Amino acid sequence: MKITVLVGSLRKLSYNRQLAATIGERHRDKFALTVADIRSLPLFDQDEEEDAPQPVRELRRSIADADGVMLITPEYNWSVPGVLKNALDWLSRVDKVMIGKPVMIAGASTGQMGTIRAQLHLREVLAGMRARLLPPAGNEILIAGAAQKFDAATGRLADEATLRFVDEVVGRFVEFVQAER
Amino acid sequence: MKITVLVGSLRKLSYNRQLAATIGERHRDKFALTVADIRSLPLFDQDEEEDAPQPVRELRRSIADADGVMLITPEYNWSVPGVLKNALDWLSRVDKVMIGKPVMIAGASTGQMGTIRAQLHLREVLAGMRARLLPPAGNEILIAGAAQKFDAATGRLADEATLRFVDEVVGRFVEFVQAER
Amino acid sequence: MKITVLVGSLRKLSYNRQLAATIGERHRDKFALTVADIRSLPLFDQDEEEDAPQPVRELRRSIADADGVMLITPEYNWSVPGVLKNALDWLSRVDKVMIGKPVMIAGASTGQMGTIRAQLHLREVLAGMRARLLPPAGNEILIAGAAQKFDAATGRLADEATLRFVDEVVGRFVEFVQAER
Amino acid sequence: MKITVLVGSLRKLSYNRQLAATIGERHRDKFALTVADIRSLPLFDQDEEEDAPQPVRELRRSIADADGVMLITPEYNWSVPGVLKNALDWLSRVDKVMIGKPVMIAGASTGQMGTIRAQLHLREVLAGMRARLLPPAGNEILIAGAAQKFDAATGRLADEATLRFVDEVVGRFVEFVQAER
Repeated sequence: MKITVLVGSLRKLSYNRQLAATIGERHRDKFALTVADIRSLPLFDQDEEEDAPQPVRELRRSIADADGVMLITPEYNWSVPGVLKNALDWLSRVDKVMIGKPVMIAGASTGQMGTIRAQLHLREVLAGMRARLLPPAGNEILIAGAAQKFDAATGRLADEATLRFVDEVVGRFVEFVQAER
Repeated sequence: MKITVLVGSLRKLSYNRQLAATIGERHRDKFALTVADIRSLPLFDQDEEEDAPQPVRELRRSIADADGVMLITPEYNWSVPGVLKNALDWLSRVDKVMIGKPVMIAGASTGQMGTIRAQLHLREVLAGMRARLLPPAGNEILIAGAAQKFDAATGRLADEATLRFVDEVVGRFVEFVQAER
Repeated sequence: MKITVLVGSLRKLSYNRQLAATIGERHRDKFALTVADIRSLPLFDQDEEEDAPQPVRELRRSIADADGVMLITPEYNWSVPGVLKNALDWLSRVDKVMIGKPVMIAGASTGQMGTIRAQLHLREVLAGMRARLLPPAGNEILIAGAAQKFDAATGRLADEATLRFVDEVVGRFVEFVQAER
Repeated sequence: MKITVLVGSLRKLSYNRQLAATIGERHRDKFALTVADIRSLPLFDQDEEEDAPQPVRELRRSIADADGVMLITPEYNWSVPGVLKNALDWLSRVDKVMIGKPVMIAGASTGQMGTIRAQLHLREVLAGMRARLLPPAGNEILIAGAAQKFDAATGRLADEATLRFVDEVVGRFVEFVQAER
């Protein structure tokens, strides 16, 4: 199984990037996780969508080839980071590779709310793109207080209870992807 | 009065760009309208926010100098375009020039709903950034069926009823900006 | 096939009630449509949920027996009417008869926006209740300008283009219900 | 100063009812807090709005007389309780007593998220009703883990850090009400 992940933060020590790495390592027996390069994307310009720049074409191909997509992202200003939304805007046009694609959402933040507002917006975006979302109730990965739950030395999620819950949701997502095939 | 406008679409013939131009021309007796260059912004990267690239510093300065801000934007995938959100993400950090800034929202689309979903998300984003929004009820510029309401030859909004409503809202925004001073 | 419909308005000449009747009559070969009595429900009180009043028990039974549920509702104050939300609050507790239940949403309004804000909120409510929603993209019944599209004499939806679209969505919902069985 | 509070839960031991009582007692030097009777309201029926039942008329009068309104509410099914929305639907019609009224929102829940989704919806409802909301950023009373923060013996909020924050927000609301007069 091939999963492509888009990480909504570009900073090097992003907890969300670390969460993606944690998931990829712990579940490598179930799927190969590829972190998409969304930093190289230009800002979306409809005038260029037909003859899209190389990084856009590569991202489209990665999503088209994937069995499922993970969106792991912080919340910026009570919503989805522009960086991530820009990638989704490119993916919604011309090839429309997100249609019908199984998608799982997760997020980590240093605050109390764990990116819940970003996830609410993101689910509407994905409904508009006709992706197939893992149903949210019971599957919301909202990691609050990230500074205490990630290990600064290893750069991996280390909180046991949180890891257990993340593993459960990832397990349900794997089944969800298989059921979609 | 100085107003800076951010246009959420980069395409040349964008109806929203034309709406910005229409507003600037019709109200030049009341304010000078500057269209911010958000195309030159890099994707937001928190690692670079303190020592931000030149286009970010220029945008911050333009907003800091403005008496008010207009956000005129299409809706992409039932939400705010990544291009616009990326600009707002830069503006929310370090100098935080949007705090307390009077803001007006408008949008045009070829469909029936006139960007209403984008505006709902945008208002939450702006509440999170502590901007001061023109209250939406009675002031929602949601131009549906844009292809019929803009003049392709002049590239300006031409529908009389819509122009009247836009003028009214802009008038209320001017008062709102003055009241904030 | 048995479908139970909850209508979000209690007024006698409600367009949404007329829409429910229109759908029931046009598709009687495919399903029997029952309009639930939500007017008789008391306001939700958690202290009474275990030993619920008779109208609550009847509503639970009607939903439990149904193959699918339609929610046909106006928008009040940019959201779901309290009348409808009150019914859903009762249905979310104790027996939890909405879990996994196929649901379709529709709405009519005299204004331009056709209840879109109510539907956005309603979809989040239903996701929280673990219902199974017909995916919204392409299936949004948002009847704007209802006064022109309903026939005052017959009390039925009469606009041909709108009827065609409603029939298509209902057809997809019937398939969605059958696929869920 | 007179403040009317609507509590979104009808159950006797509601944490939100206790939060209302806590606020009323701690700030009795600043305002008199009246808990509105919303349990006696019938379900909203537009056919009855002009000649409204007695409890509706009393609620309208209480809001009209108040200098400000507090909405203190749990979250039901990721949104506003039907009980509270029903009261707001009555208040939005005929006399429209909420227009321009200063409003503060608060909520307590036993879960992690502290009613944030309900508050997001409630703010859109109030924007639609043209109420004047205390700006949310920095003023969000989202009491998570309520079972640990309220004293079961006294039925009052007892957590010191939370009390301090609630007092601060109430203080800002008092200033906000005075500024509006």
